Amino acid sequence: MVVLVTGFEPFGGDTVNPTQEIVHALPAREGQAEIAKLVLPVEFVRGPEEAGSEIRRIRPDAVICLGLAGGRDAVTPERTAVNVMDARIPDAAGYRPKDQAIRPGEREAYFTALPYRAMIEAVKAEGVPAKLSESAGTYVCNCLMYEVLRLRAQEGLKIPCGFVHVPYLDTMGKDGQPSLSLDEMVRAVLACIRTLAA
Amino acid sequence: MVVLVTGFEPFGGDTVNPTQEIVHALPAREGQAEIAKLVLPVEFVRGPEEAGSEIRRIRPDAVICLGLAGGRDAVTPERTAVNVMDARIPDAAGYRPKDQAIRPGEREAYFTALPYRAMIEAVKAEGVPAKLSESAGTYVCNCLMYEVLRLRAQEGLKIPCGFVHVPYLDTMGKDGQPSLSLDEMVRAVLACIRTLAA
Amino acid sequence: MVVLVTGFEPFGGDTVNPTQEIVHALPAREGQAEIAKLVLPVEFVRGPEEAGSEIRRIRPDAVICLGLAGGRDAVTPERTAVNVMDARIPDAAGYRPKDQAIRPGEREAYFTALPYRAMIEAVKAEGVPAKLSESAGTYVCNCLMYEVLRLRAQEGLKIPCGFVHVPYLDTMGKDGQPSLSLDEMVRAVLACIRTLAA
Amino acid sequence: MVVLVTGFEPFGGDTVNPTQEIVHALPAREGQAEIAKLVLPVEFVRGPEEAGSEIRRIRPDAVICLGLAGGRDAVTPERTAVNVMDARIPDAAGYRPKDQAIRPGEREAYFTALPYRAMIEAVKAEGVPAKLSESAGTYVCNCLMYEVLRLRAQEGLKIPCGFVHVPYLDTMGKDGQPSLSLDEMVRAVLACIRTLAA
Repeated sequence: MVVLVTGFEPFGGDTVNPTQEIVHALPAREGQAEIAKLVLPVEFVRGPEEAGSEIRRIRPDAVICLGLAGGRDAVTPERTAVNVMDARIPDAAGYRPKDQAIRPGEREAYFTALPYRAMIEAVKAEGVPAKLSESAGTYVCNCLMYEVLRLRAQEGLKIPCGFVHVPYLDTMGKDGQPSLSLDEMVRAVLACIRTLAA
Repeated sequence: MVVLVTGFEPFGGDTVNPTQEIVHALPAREGQAEIAKLVLPVEFVRGPEEAGSEIRRIRPDAVICLGLAGGRDAVTPERTAVNVMDARIPDAAGYRPKDQAIRPGEREAYFTALPYRAMIEAVKAEGVPAKLSESAGTYVCNCLMYEVLRLRAQEGLKIPCGFVHVPYLDTMGKDGQPSLSLDEMVRAVLACIRTLAA
Repeated sequence: MVVLVTGFEPFGGDTVNPTQEIVHALPAREGQAEIAKLVLPVEFVRGPEEAGSEIRRIRPDAVICLGLAGGRDAVTPERTAVNVMDARIPDAAGYRPKDQAIRPGEREAYFTALPYRAMIEAVKAEGVPAKLSESAGTYVCNCLMYEVLRLRAQEGLKIPCGFVHVPYLDTMGKDGQPSLSLDEMVRAVLACIRTLAA
Repeated sequence: MVVLVTGFEPFGGDTVNPTQEIVHALPAREGQAEIAKLVLPVEFVRGPEEAGSEIRRIRPDAVICLGLAGGRDAVTPERTAVNVMDARIPDAAGYRPKDQAIRPGEREAYFTALPYRAMIEAVKAEGVPAKLSESAGTYVCNCLMYEVLRLRAQEGLKIPCGFVHVPYLDTMGKDGQPSLSLDEMVRAVLACIRTLAA
């Protein structure tokens, strides 16, 4: 099987993005699973577009999108993507939607199609904190999750697919904020991949 | 009167530090107060040393040290500096003390010598959230606060002196994390300065 | 106009519930608005049922449901109710759904029908902290919000309607947790009501 | 050896206190250690007094004081007790000190005399989250920690002694707040006791 893992480019005042580092550090395979990789721009429009193109092109058997949620202390699969864009700051393309629908008139929300309970147990078994999150926010991460799950629904794909937020990286030097090492993050994502290949 | 305001250089994965921006954006005077400015390296040794040298050189009538506390949602004067260095990550000089005293055998803690209640009210009157913090952490910020208050005690200075943490800047692009605009931060610091000059 | 304000009974280890206190403390009128009051049990089934009965009986012109979100530091209108029940602990009737739909096969989510931006500004103008929340959780509060907004949709009511979470009460004695006074909470709810009557 | 474990009575709006439950649920012995138990009132004066009397009476070989820190997600040994009382709400005796010293003119702070690194590892090995805390607050918990460590210093006791905060209990029904089961808490405290007896 092929598992597509996406990350994001560094953004705003940060010179690194843990999810880009994770994507780069992942091996080409984990057990039965071949790992396809993609790093996306932090843009409401191009981010989901590039993910959609890649999904249509390589037809993966599963998709795990990763994003940074600075301040969280655990690896957090998201339960729900909402049909909302509400940005405190412009994205990398300078776009700043306020209280707007991603897809006007369409579904209010999509629920994740990842086996989040199994994933959380698998990550915790690696000694890395994990728990379910009830909000992916209203910025580019939520938008990507919404669009990828919408594509899945519209194309009738039956594949596991969803979004996982990660904390800061240790090396980002956020004093007083929770963080994980790159090794912990990579082990967490590999544990997630194994629950899909099982 | 002369008020020395210190900030820190950007550090770790960040390309900006709000406290450096504040120091640069402050005017030369606020009412009766002349504002002296200093930007320090995020180093346990050189940070406090450079602050100490400047205090001895210019003999200010008050000292406000500023630091970033990413994740906080308010401007937070610190009550206490503890005689501890405990770093999750190396400082800008590569130094990473673990569970160590700043000054072995010396005082466990110094309390701030800033009028924090008046400062908090003054900042809130500017429409900027403010509250007292009970821990400055155990990294370079706490170390600077400890050393500056120790210098004040040892030299018998009777001046107002202490540390104030600030949240992320809006423009740092920390999605999902509280932040303030540079204008709000500058107004907050000027309000603090006015409580000293009053 | 008639505004229905609902609160909840005390629950679990708590002897008071701020939202019950607020409901009791609200006056009978605020300007043009007559205030109808209802206190609900913390139960997935009976809570929404009793709210629904009352809405059908008195046909209010607006509905504001209140709930406690211990640990929050602001009055927080909720944006979204999701079609999920996921309880860490049993409700007051001993019911503990896990990862279950409130209404299997129905809409994933409802968005609030309250003017949340105007409400937030009105509450802040009272000197009480307020901000938008992106998750009402997956317990009885979210369930009530979902069911009340579903009733509104199904009956074609065009009324403002939604959910607002409040912090702990000062007098609940939660050391180290944010809290508001009953007076602040009542002023906040009255400010919300005025935005509806305006 | 004898290890004295103290908890607190329920307080404010709560009908249970996890630390009282823990103390009651602890066995009489853990390996070599005999466990002495004491439940204290949430009072600045009587709480530390009763702890002090018991320490003088039974002369324990170690003291672990427990307190509730609602909102925390881990068992958290405290590093530092500060010479400050600052209460948002009155204690159980109606006393509400503001920005006051516990012992005017005395030491600013005491550091814990518990092997916190070993304790944290031992608790985590039980599968219970644990980490160091840098502030015990300024309420009765901090006051008890300060007074017990002061007694230890004044009487020249060389015993391990300090304070550990715990989260809410699952059964307290704090929706949206982190919590642990009583079984997890008891296992955590027993793990702490074993590090002392080792």
